[in-house]
Amino acid sequence: MPDVLVSAGQRGRVGRVGSSRHATTDLLDRYRGVRRLTEVLAEPLSPEDQTVQSMPDVSPTKWHRAHTSWFFETFLLGPNSPGYRPFHPDFAFLFNSYYEAAGPRYSRAQRGCVSRPGCAEIADYRAHVDEHMVDLIEGGPDDRTASLIELGLNHEQQHQELLLMDVKHVLGMSPLDPVYRTSAPPPTVAASASDWVKHDGGLAEIGHAGTGFSYDNEGPRHQVHLAPFAVADRLVTCGDWMNFIRDGGYSTASLWLSDGWATVHADRLEAPLYWRPETDGSWSVFTLGGRRRVDPAEPVCHVSYYEADAYATWAGARLPTEFEWEAVAAGRPVGGQFDDPAGVHPQVQAEPALFGEAWAWTSSAYLPYPGFRPATGAVGEYNGKFMVNQQVLRGGCRATPAGHVRPTYRNFFPAGARWPFTGLRLAKDI
Amino acid sequence: MPDVLVSAGQRGRVGRVGSSRHATTDLLDRYRGVRRLTEVLAEPLSPEDQTVQSMPDVSPTKWHRAHTSWFFETFLLGPNSPGYRPFHPDFAFLFNSYYEAAGPRYSRAQRGCVSRPGCAEIADYRAHVDEHMVDLIEGGPDDRTASLIELGLNHEQQHQELLLMDVKHVLGMSPLDPVYRTSAPPPTVAASASDWVKHDGGLAEIGHAGTGFSYDNEGPRHQVHLAPFAVADRLVTCGDWMNFIRDGGYSTASLWLSDGWATVHADRLEAPLYWRPETDGSWSVFTLGGRRRVDPAEPVCHVSYYEADAYATWAGARLPTEFEWEAVAAGRPVGGQFDDPAGVHPQVQAEPALFGEAWAWTSSAYLPYPGFRPATGAVGEYNGKFMVNQQVLRGGCRATPAGHVRPTYRNFFPAGARWPFTGLRLAKDI
Amino acid sequence: MPDVLVSAGQRGRVGRVGSSRHATTDLLDRYRGVRRLTEVLAEPLSPEDQTVQSMPDVSPTKWHRAHTSWFFETFLLGPNSPGYRPFHPDFAFLFNSYYEAAGPRYSRAQRGCVSRPGCAEIADYRAHVDEHMVDLIEGGPDDRTASLIELGLNHEQQHQELLLMDVKHVLGMSPLDPVYRTSAPPPTVAASASDWVKHDGGLAEIGHAGTGFSYDNEGPRHQVHLAPFAVADRLVTCGDWMNFIRDGGYSTASLWLSDGWATVHADRLEAPLYWRPETDGSWSVFTLGGRRRVDPAEPVCHVSYYEADAYATWAGARLPTEFEWEAVAAGRPVGGQFDDPAGVHPQVQAEPALFGEAWAWTSSAYLPYPGFRPATGAVGEYNGKFMVNQQVLRGGCRATPAGHVRPTYRNFFPAGARWPFTGLRLAKDI
Amino acid sequence: MPDVLVSAGQRGRVGRVGSSRHATTDLLDRYRGVRRLTEVLAEPLSPEDQTVQSMPDVSPTKWHRAHTSWFFETFLLGPNSPGYRPFHPDFAFLFNSYYEAAGPRYSRAQRGCVSRPGCAEIADYRAHVDEHMVDLIEGGPDDRTASLIELGLNHEQQHQELLLMDVKHVLGMSPLDPVYRTSAPPPTVAASASDWVKHDGGLAEIGHAGTGFSYDNEGPRHQVHLAPFAVADRLVTCGDWMNFIRDGGYSTASLWLSDGWATVHADRLEAPLYWRPETDGSWSVFTLGGRRRVDPAEPVCHVSYYEADAYATWAGARLPTEFEWEAVAAGRPVGGQFDDPAGVHPQVQAEPALFGEAWAWTSSAYLPYPGFRPATGAVGEYNGKFMVNQQVLRGGCRATPAGHVRPTYRNFFPAGARWPFTGLRLAKDI
Repeated sequence: MPDVLVSAGQRGRVGRVGSSRHATTDLLDRYRGVRRLTEVLAEPLSPEDQTVQSMPDVSPTKWHRAHTSWFFETFLLGPNSPGYRPFHPDFAFLFNSYYEAAGPRYSRAQRGCVSRPGCAEIADYRAHVDEHMVDLIEGGPDDRTASLIELGLNHEQQHQELLLMDVKHVLGMSPLDPVYRTSAPPPTVAASASDWVKHDGGLAEIGHAGTGFSYDNEGPRHQVHLAPFAVADRLVTCGDWMNFIRDGGYSTASLWLSDGWATVHADRLEAPLYWRPETDGSWSVFTLGGRRRVDPAEPVCHVSYYEADAYATWAGARLPTEFEWEAVAAGRPVGGQFDDPAGVHPQVQAEPALFGEAWAWTSSAYLPYPGFRPATGAVGEYNGKFMVNQQVLRGGCRATPAGHVRPTYRNFFPAGARWPFTGLRLAKDI
Repeated sequence: MPDVLVSAGQRGRVGRVGSSRHATTDLLDRYRGVRRLTEVLAEPLSPEDQTVQSMPDVSPTKWHRAHTSWFFETFLLGPNSPGYRPFHPDFAFLFNSYYEAAGPRYSRAQRGCVSRPGCAEIADYRAHVDEHMVDLIEGGPDDRTASLIELGLNHEQQHQELLLMDVKHVLGMSPLDPVYRTSAPPPTVAASASDWVKHDGGLAEIGHAGTGFSYDNEGPRHQVHLAPFAVADRLVTCGDWMNFIRDGGYSTASLWLSDGWATVHADRLEAPLYWRPETDGSWSVFTLGGRRRVDPAEPVCHVSYYEADAYATWAGARLPTEFEWEAVAAGRPVGGQFDDPAGVHPQVQAEPALFGEAWAWTSSAYLPYPGFRPATGAVGEYNGKFMVNQQVLRGGCRATPAGHVRPTYRNFFPAGARWPFTGLRLAKDI
Repeated sequence: MPDVLVSAGQRGRVGRVGSSRHATTDLLDRYRGVRRLTEVLAEPLSPEDQTVQSMPDVSPTKWHRAHTSWFFETFLLGPNSPGYRPFHPDFAFLFNSYYEAAGPRYSRAQRGCVSRPGCAEIADYRAHVDEHMVDLIEGGPDDRTASLIELGLNHEQQHQELLLMDVKHVLGMSPLDPVYRTSAPPPTVAASASDWVKHDGGLAEIGHAGTGFSYDNEGPRHQVHLAPFAVADRLVTCGDWMNFIRDGGYSTASLWLSDGWATVHADRLEAPLYWRPETDGSWSVFTLGGRRRVDPAEPVCHVSYYEADAYATWAGARLPTEFEWEAVAAGRPVGGQFDDPAGVHPQVQAEPALFGEAWAWTSSAYLPYPGFRPATGAVGEYNGKFMVNQQVLRGGCRATPAGHVRPTYRNFFPAGARWPFTGLRLAKDI
Repeated sequence: MPDVLVSAGQRGRVGRVGSSRHATTDLLDRYRGVRRLTEVLAEPLSPEDQTVQSMPDVSPTKWHRAHTSWFFETFLLGPNSPGYRPFHPDFAFLFNSYYEAAGPRYSRAQRGCVSRPGCAEIADYRAHVDEHMVDLIEGGPDDRTASLIELGLNHEQQHQELLLMDVKHVLGMSPLDPVYRTSAPPPTVAASASDWVKHDGGLAEIGHAGTGFSYDNEGPRHQVHLAPFAVADRLVTCGDWMNFIRDGGYSTASLWLSDGWATVHADRLEAPLYWRPETDGSWSVFTLGGRRRVDPAEPVCHVSYYEADAYATWAGARLPTEFEWEAVAAGRPVGGQFDDPAGVHPQVQAEPALFGEAWAWTSSAYLPYPGFRPATGAVGEYNGKFMVNQQVLRGGCRATPAGHVRPTYRNFFPAGARWPFTGLRLAKDI
């Protein structure tokens, strides 16, 4: 997702909306659906679960629930609903994330220090905002307002994924290995044999075109020249990763970027986040469904860019650029995002797939496309604000809401991030 | 209280029990009363309130509730109740505070990262422990066991005060100034005119004697030679403190200890913790009953040793030693601790008082008395373990359970601590 | 220079040498010239000056003098001079910078803690290495060895610039504003009126070709597709920058990248490094020739990527990509590096110039070119090791040895670096 | 020495001078002798050695040389020599250590970043100050001025010891184990068999009396009541310490104060500072004469208070209070300080000794004596400023100038300090 936490802990999002007219009914259905899904995702979480911030990059669940409501309150209800009174005068301070123009903000790193408002009051807040938003939508918003509502909904969908990756980190702090939501064990299947998708290179069209919704960082559409290359048709699996570990991957300096090698030492890395060596020599992994044995056929997840890059070097390959991936993925079926909020964990790719299960690190730094211009006003204030010190990821993951990924979608995280659902696929020159 | 958090965030307690025989019924009543009070104190707090750790020195309310139960489980039920099974195999790891001999421990600074077990499960844990403890007590424990139970109860009483000072810090993090428990506004009364209690000096008997309960750091009783001195018969008030502020106390280097002056700059101190300047030039203070205007007649509270020492220098006086205070306080009426758990805030000392309302910093470092020997075993493992880098406080505070303070009681905190209920009284040579 | 310090404090260099045969005499002259220049640059510096490490990114002068000798000792004399004995058995440990394969290393951050060996012993070390290197060169090295010698000389030239930027930071720590080397005041001239160099876009050839020396990160040569653009024909000046300051550039959040805004606050930035507001409202700047009044016509220097980017946003423009700059700079005259080691300070660009005076930040992240492969062995071990979390700079600066810059030369630093000689030029879409 | 560095890095000194009249000639001789000794101590150190600050608590040698001169310039020449012009207008800023009233100061932690003024300029500074000081002394200063000169000389003597302990730390940073000054190897002698010096307890007179020089923290003389006790008649030796190590002292939590155990883990302590395990299983130690095998008969040195306390616990004993030591040491011969500046290393105590070789940690916190009042003015500004968070040490060490220690002399350091010449002797109740 382009909505991503940088190391300093702020988020970058804000989209560019397409020009299609949203029928009021459709928009209302969509509004209700997205808003309800957030509550469905929070439902298995106790008030205690929803309060904890396990590290500065993580936000409490109840903060996500409130912040997404604050977005509608601030950018939709305030300007468009005459006489609208904010639910609480201090919530703007508490639940603004990084919009400087929207006023001062509570320190991100201390979000976990705020016990009140609690979950019940935040449910009231959401209901209050929903009531007025429904009025606004039923009143037939103009195109610009409808577009902004669509942006708010995409914003909330991004936070649905953030909510899941954040609460996974929270639950992972307890030695009790708590279960977010029990799900049926995944069927035992074999991973697709890895093959290469080849591309002859030349000029490729990159970036969003057409009328559907996209974020502004997906454009402008432009040409990029590519040398001939090939991209793997599936993600690297846990079994692949165990080979890397067994071969001394985490103790071979020559495989690593310099900054990466420093994190290996500073954080004593020896496996992906959430993996734990068991006494019988096997690996277990903490999932939102509890701790279980690592399935070698699954895509590996929760590795940093540094780990991904070291793995690719070890494998005699490299990571793809975001342009290579997009050139290959365009027109392919999008899948591997969640349909059922239970069982949020990467599933075995039994068939070749360019999308889904885990975000794939690319070797591209997150930079503006040629001709990119930030939008104006507070919503657009930070469009390009995160375009430094981050790497692009592509393809979506099992925790991404269905329909929320497309070939041009650019997610981004700092190179050291491991708590998002981050994996990798290989590439090579041909 | 001798149960205190050092900067590294660990606690020191363990008492020396008196020799009197506890009748089973009395002990049972007392056990039930103390355990119930903890729950009464936690009752106004939501699950969210009970989960937050607002800084490393603070522990979540639900942790206090669990840890005090762990004490009984580990030191009483384990050794004395054949066949007792711990409520949960991981709770010993989660709720041990610092007893090295009792096994490994969860990192103190991350207590606020643990969302599960939640409040409900901890209530079950308490009930489970209580059920077995009642059996144990009804079975007629021997003297040594009864003494250990008495220690566990004193331990829990200490945590009752810690719970209150910790949750005050938690609630104080919210810009909403949340109310712990609404209480009637205190009556408006004048503070007692400050006078001096004089002492001719000479050899004083210091330390606990007799058969009642005391902690081991209160003994052995021994002689200390004192020069003639006087101690103020009331605590320094908020009105006094405002004079110190107005006179530039926080910006006059010559008043401060070197380490203290460093904290003034590093933390930008300009008033006691929880004070806030209002736009009308007055001061407000955050209390467990909400934010209200500072009452100049009240004892000042939430000042560090550095602030207390600077104030005393400014006032042309000094802080008393713990021996001077004890020599004067012995035999005086003990008061100023809570009888009603509502309204936990220092009250105006309308009459001269040597005890209560706020712990008074002394100029004595926390050191062992001559002949002090730590107890043996895990309970006594850390008796003297905190006897460095801390200052002694005396007299109890409004958040101390009634009956839990005596003239020999030694509380201690690092010199920079401000979140306990810490105040001061002056002394001088005569 | 491609030789650059990353935040973790390690260096990336290692070049790819051309295929031309070096005549022994030419190589000997060149060896002696480069080695002598290092000593000339160190000559004005006292032993005290050469010892200090003013921050972790900075290395002491005597370390630079030793490390560049260690390079020849380790990669040339060790393998190629039978019977060569290292000058001192511990120097390999002390003066290895980041070559993991070459053995363990002394902690970079503590280079300033090592007082011995002192300057005199390091002079002996250099003489010892030179004596054996002269023998090696006079013996007529084979092509591969000659190429490696050429690499060592380019390596040492990079360190000549590093030495100057580092010692500037050291001297800048003293309130006495010490002078490195007195130089005649620069002539007062006007800056060239800024104009745009336009480019029609399309496919551009990027990267090194031909037989001369280049670093491996300059290749392979490949095609990049560009949209039409224009690049300013001179650097942004101090006068330009004063306008930015006066217009509130450092206090306008909307101009800054998120990470940049964080540094503005954390480091309280309000002007380029080495600038100081004077009581008469003017700005002075610390230079290697001492402190003097800022000349508005000079190129601004010692700004971070964040500052450069904010300035460009404020100016309604943007920074060029490294490809845009190279496409325009190719074939232009190279200049603005030092010919005379005195007077190392950016000089006014009285004529349009694409090169020199101050390294220009580009908007390109430092990434491998398509088809890039690290060299093998210790020398090449880290070829691509720094290709993350850094921005590319182009064009050379007044402290770069003459002849050491070309259109394909890629220097790189983390976005927050201010102590190198870093400036900027603007670009725009057309 | 009472002149000691606290963790925040400031010094506490300032003495109370006796009333005896100093004859001009005697004072002049003494002035010249003390000033010359500082230069003798610095003489073996290169400019590089004199520049390094190996950690924030350490000051560079050239800083010590300048700061002691600044003391005379500021407190003697400024007020008493009409028309005196400071040697350099910025030196007051650079070489003030912590006297707030004497103006702003250069950050202590960055003393090692200042390369200029260098050693030669500081030699000129010293000569300039000496010239004027000689004039002042020859002019026949009044009693108050003479007392202040005496204070300045004691101040400089304190810095002589600080200089040695600081430069030992500097040289110890180099893997080359550099030699400060070669000295003949100490004779091989056996340590005195340890015996106890017994004391019946009762009221003891503590603190300075009489007319000789003393620091103000040595008074007022007052009575302290002691229980019967015994103090060891020699320091704990390296052989004793090896037994502690072999017995698992550094891995037995129950022996340690809580703060101490935290340092064992954080700093991975396993032996005194400067000890290194050799491959043959023996221990070597870095000394100012170079690295050599540990002599089991020598007093152990460079241990923290935490280590000293843990050792005493392990040995079934305790550390003495400063009062116990003084009660026993009064009237005993003072020795074990340096007569010859070469060979600055603790020597074997072949005979019982209460003084010298290594400062002995006491269990007393550094607190004011009853009736203590800070002096007025800048010199006395910080008299009591360090009286928190420190432990008292007694007895002097091999690096203390001869004649600079007496039974009432109170040195003090934070409990974690290991780089001073700190050892211990045992005590017990009887």
